[in-house]
Amino acid sequence: MSKMIAVQVSRGGGPFEIVERPLPTPGAGQVRLRVEACGVCHSDALVKEGHWQGLPYPRVPGHEVVGTVEAVGPGVEGWAVGDRAGVGWHGGQCYSCHPCRKGDFAMCTTSRVTGITHDGGYASHMIAPAESMARLPKDVDAAEAGPLLCAGLTVFNALRHTAARAGDVVAIQGIGGLGHLGVQFAAKMGFETVAVSRGADKRAFATQLGAHAYIDTNDGDLGEQLQALGGAKVALATAPSGAAIASLIPGLGIDGQLMIAAAPHDAITIGAMPLIMGRRSIRGWYSGVATDSEETVAFAAQAGVKPMIETFKLEQAEEAYQRMITNKARFRAVLTMGHLHGA
Amino acid sequence: MSKMIAVQVSRGGGPFEIVERPLPTPGAGQVRLRVEACGVCHSDALVKEGHWQGLPYPRVPGHEVVGTVEAVGPGVEGWAVGDRAGVGWHGGQCYSCHPCRKGDFAMCTTSRVTGITHDGGYASHMIAPAESMARLPKDVDAAEAGPLLCAGLTVFNALRHTAARAGDVVAIQGIGGLGHLGVQFAAKMGFETVAVSRGADKRAFATQLGAHAYIDTNDGDLGEQLQALGGAKVALATAPSGAAIASLIPGLGIDGQLMIAAAPHDAITIGAMPLIMGRRSIRGWYSGVATDSEETVAFAAQAGVKPMIETFKLEQAEEAYQRMITNKARFRAVLTMGHLHGA
Amino acid sequence: MSKMIAVQVSRGGGPFEIVERPLPTPGAGQVRLRVEACGVCHSDALVKEGHWQGLPYPRVPGHEVVGTVEAVGPGVEGWAVGDRAGVGWHGGQCYSCHPCRKGDFAMCTTSRVTGITHDGGYASHMIAPAESMARLPKDVDAAEAGPLLCAGLTVFNALRHTAARAGDVVAIQGIGGLGHLGVQFAAKMGFETVAVSRGADKRAFATQLGAHAYIDTNDGDLGEQLQALGGAKVALATAPSGAAIASLIPGLGIDGQLMIAAAPHDAITIGAMPLIMGRRSIRGWYSGVATDSEETVAFAAQAGVKPMIETFKLEQAEEAYQRMITNKARFRAVLTMGHLHGA
Amino acid sequence: MSKMIAVQVSRGGGPFEIVERPLPTPGAGQVRLRVEACGVCHSDALVKEGHWQGLPYPRVPGHEVVGTVEAVGPGVEGWAVGDRAGVGWHGGQCYSCHPCRKGDFAMCTTSRVTGITHDGGYASHMIAPAESMARLPKDVDAAEAGPLLCAGLTVFNALRHTAARAGDVVAIQGIGGLGHLGVQFAAKMGFETVAVSRGADKRAFATQLGAHAYIDTNDGDLGEQLQALGGAKVALATAPSGAAIASLIPGLGIDGQLMIAAAPHDAITIGAMPLIMGRRSIRGWYSGVATDSEETVAFAAQAGVKPMIETFKLEQAEEAYQRMITNKARFRAVLTMGHLHGA
Repeated sequence: MSKMIAVQVSRGGGPFEIVERPLPTPGAGQVRLRVEACGVCHSDALVKEGHWQGLPYPRVPGHEVVGTVEAVGPGVEGWAVGDRAGVGWHGGQCYSCHPCRKGDFAMCTTSRVTGITHDGGYASHMIAPAESMARLPKDVDAAEAGPLLCAGLTVFNALRHTAARAGDVVAIQGIGGLGHLGVQFAAKMGFETVAVSRGADKRAFATQLGAHAYIDTNDGDLGEQLQALGGAKVALATAPSGAAIASLIPGLGIDGQLMIAAAPHDAITIGAMPLIMGRRSIRGWYSGVATDSEETVAFAAQAGVKPMIETFKLEQAEEAYQRMITNKARFRAVLTMGHLHGA
Repeated sequence: MSKMIAVQVSRGGGPFEIVERPLPTPGAGQVRLRVEACGVCHSDALVKEGHWQGLPYPRVPGHEVVGTVEAVGPGVEGWAVGDRAGVGWHGGQCYSCHPCRKGDFAMCTTSRVTGITHDGGYASHMIAPAESMARLPKDVDAAEAGPLLCAGLTVFNALRHTAARAGDVVAIQGIGGLGHLGVQFAAKMGFETVAVSRGADKRAFATQLGAHAYIDTNDGDLGEQLQALGGAKVALATAPSGAAIASLIPGLGIDGQLMIAAAPHDAITIGAMPLIMGRRSIRGWYSGVATDSEETVAFAAQAGVKPMIETFKLEQAEEAYQRMITNKARFRAVLTMGHLHGA
Repeated sequence: MSKMIAVQVSRGGGPFEIVERPLPTPGAGQVRLRVEACGVCHSDALVKEGHWQGLPYPRVPGHEVVGTVEAVGPGVEGWAVGDRAGVGWHGGQCYSCHPCRKGDFAMCTTSRVTGITHDGGYASHMIAPAESMARLPKDVDAAEAGPLLCAGLTVFNALRHTAARAGDVVAIQGIGGLGHLGVQFAAKMGFETVAVSRGADKRAFATQLGAHAYIDTNDGDLGEQLQALGGAKVALATAPSGAAIASLIPGLGIDGQLMIAAAPHDAITIGAMPLIMGRRSIRGWYSGVATDSEETVAFAAQAGVKPMIETFKLEQAEEAYQRMITNKARFRAVLTMGHLHGA
Repeated sequence: MSKMIAVQVSRGGGPFEIVERPLPTPGAGQVRLRVEACGVCHSDALVKEGHWQGLPYPRVPGHEVVGTVEAVGPGVEGWAVGDRAGVGWHGGQCYSCHPCRKGDFAMCTTSRVTGITHDGGYASHMIAPAESMARLPKDVDAAEAGPLLCAGLTVFNALRHTAARAGDVVAIQGIGGLGHLGVQFAAKMGFETVAVSRGADKRAFATQLGAHAYIDTNDGDLGEQLQALGGAKVALATAPSGAAIASLIPGLGIDGQLMIAAAPHDAITIGAMPLIMGRRSIRGWYSGVATDSEETVAFAAQAGVKPMIETFKLEQAEEAYQRMITNKARFRAVLTMGHLHGA
């Protein structure tokens, strides 16, 4: 095969450019995927805006990749042509750093990230390290599975690593790309799920997503409203503001945990007393690995959790990105290759 | 008021007898409940058959009691006439033994059990220690809430104290009084729920209860069937046989837990190697306290979990008990007072 | 007995005043202790300086009380004249609020605090709610046991509720009243213990307390120095400054926990990224109950942990307080009654 | 180099035979170690007696190997000639099975075991998969480090994965190869350590190892004796008999855990009631990986834990094995190469 592939590249500023490249051959430990769909994520801005230090350009972004195995490189175990696979944020591991030797691949010190430190899924085809690939069921919908691999995994993996158990009050702050998945996941995990947002108009939608209660921050103090529901065992912060995140703390119950799954640009200022008096905590959670993606997708299928998406062609990557970055997308933008475009 | 109350008493052998007693006045720390409904539980046999050592007779059994507060004794905080309350297995605590001083009331060394160490809910009225009482919502259905206070609590409280998280495989062994609730709870807690029983005819029913898979032990080795599903993170044993319980161990996954919520009459014989090789464990779980009952009932309401019940009048206690003890009841027998029988 | 007792009272400003009061009789659920010793703690300032809102004065401070049971009130189980007892910060519980019903007495909503919401141990005798009393061994040294009941408990109870296990790096920030105990406890709990303070002159002392390493914050960046030791699994903050506490975060390892056991006066400003990237957390811990005191004292005896103390007579309470509040005491000031002063 | 190496081989029955082999060259991902010392372990019997199904012979046993890197194969990261290394039971991982993809190398389905599925350390030199190698400090004593890599790791890793915290009662059953290390580790981890064995003559030795209490099973019921100490939070079973192991259960406290670190030949028969009534559990623990070995050795160095050993030359492997298998060795037999025997 000597055909060409299409990729959208960023040069660290300016719009994406679609270019052709020769069909790549997977190296040792690698697999070539024919990309079916790729979600567009806020953190693609790290590439687009040149915020990731020392990144060589051009770079193909995209870390919510669903594809089909087309070629398998030397030394790869367990993957065959025709298998369906997902590739998320975690771009593989070195196996020899200290965290890797302990099996904690997510903390690999080499920090390999799909679509950032190597080319990702804004493309007709991509090369993926085999260990970054999640096995997907034959029948999964590519466009809907894409956002589960980063946005979905981030909230599901964070939530299941809290101390919350079925019946506990779990607040999800924000009903956007992460939050609309967070509410669905939390409800299906058996939590008493409280959606937190601004505006009365979101109440019905929160309920539709499965929330058992909705708090409108226009209605008064967030902490008091959460305490009226018993206090949150867990509050999952997805808001992009340190002040908004900090406002969840007074709403935590005893031993309550504030879980930060997305980083605000500004600092978070907290008092020690609210932490001490209720033995409360604040924790960050960092993504997950390929098996976490598999478990996220499996749980979503079992429970009927689906991202709400807008789809775009690969050629429309710039448009899709602009919808996403201006918070116009409801709620995740996904490039579908479709293939290209014989479907 | 000098009216009489009706109670069914056991004399430690022979059928229950209905007798009249003067209306009791609650002592310090006690509350009088007008009983609305009371579930009939296998462990009522401890009273009926005289298996609880040193028990004074006659004794009124019944520890799945739903009632309304009718009189409040001295020193009781937080309860008022008209409140609805549930009383389960845990019959109160001494506050001064070592477990009580640590706040672990379920392990109180005085072993106070409703309907065993003091009179229970096979009655028109009963006296309950205030601390044994769970607050129930105004609108709860008395007959359906009854079995949640022991059978429901036992499985829900055991399941939420395992290491299983949403998406993990959880097997529920047996689809009887405990099991039919266990399957519902597990499914609503987000577990990939596997019902285990004997016979193809139970498959449809298991699915209806929410099970994602059904294992018919007639179809072959239970361990192999569970391993084919990935291995159980948790297997909840409700079977009354040590051999049946032990047969779950080979079906546990890595770090899998066998949770024993109901005691078989015979011993359980295990090999150490299956425990060591997969870091597996076997644990017993013991009931819970009033706040556990509240959380069980709240979760059941949130998730739509309901016991399947057969109802009987107080006069029919013997009949209800016989249905239950011969495993004919589908699945819990409940006495409804109704009151008596004006309502 | 109609003898008088001596107490030091605060009027919420100005020096302590010693006054005589009639010998009190314990009420229901109470015990009268002949006080042997009482530690002087920073939080006594809440009474002395009038910082606890709504406190009635005069008030006898003191919540590190070691005494002997002299009289037992009605309804008290398990205590007899002659028993030795300790009373710490936790001043008892209501048994009827929601946390109490769950057995979480430390979180009792009535917030009863020894020496604050009722009179404490700066006295020849005191009345204690029975449930606030820890059983002490016959042979415990009263003056040394006092500081274990608040300062000791605070650090021991916080440390044992972290995720740190034997061999993990645990940093103790500050070598003062809390820190000099924290270093000893951490070392005896099997942690690789790192003392953090300012100045080369404290290195030898840290080693003497059992620290395996000492970090002098004058030597460079605290985070880098901690990372050079592998990163802290737990950092216990005892410093009275938000900035100092926040400076521990970059020194946390993967899944590292910053545990805040003492509240600084100012806010703590944190970034989300350091929390997210290493799944790090910040938690507050709040004291403990009587059985926690018992376990602290027992562990201290088993492991040879002892507070360094300066002793003062009851008459010298003002002087003891001034030594403590100006950080001149090495490291805990203790009033010894000795009895008064027949010894 | 064309020199020969010496190895002791088993043929699955009969005595070990020393043979010469050509100096092997490490393949991809492998390292050649010059063996300094190798412990002799009960599980070497699996090779010696032919109890491991399907094992090809001759086989060189030994999985408590301390050596120096002599040659590094292709693709190996992080190891250099001259580094000191330890190799324990865990013989490496496949990286592609499900447990490996989750980072749980100890559960790798390929079950690679040093000295069993590939040749081990009863030899002057051995080839080790790089990922099976633990980094050892330059100055570690080879003969003393050997037994830490299997016997030591087994007890330390099991103990730190229990719920026991500093001050909790931990019983170590048996004072043999595992037990004499278990008592030392438990004491240094801050547990109230109870050694359990038969015979008054072992009391002094138990105390010398650091035990806070000693239970002589000749003195009466083990369960009652443990309960008199408060009940064990954890009982670590090292006895080779199912009945002996089961006899620990009545001695467990509330939420107590029976941890099985060594498999008895016979079955363990338990009752469900003792598990249920105290929420007790029984768990198996399975060895650990290279980083666990590193942490075991580091903790042993920090805390002063040392195995008691008898040393033998490589030529004496049969004698060493016989001392061990007949329980005459006090307490671990170690082959020292010394090298061979220039050093």
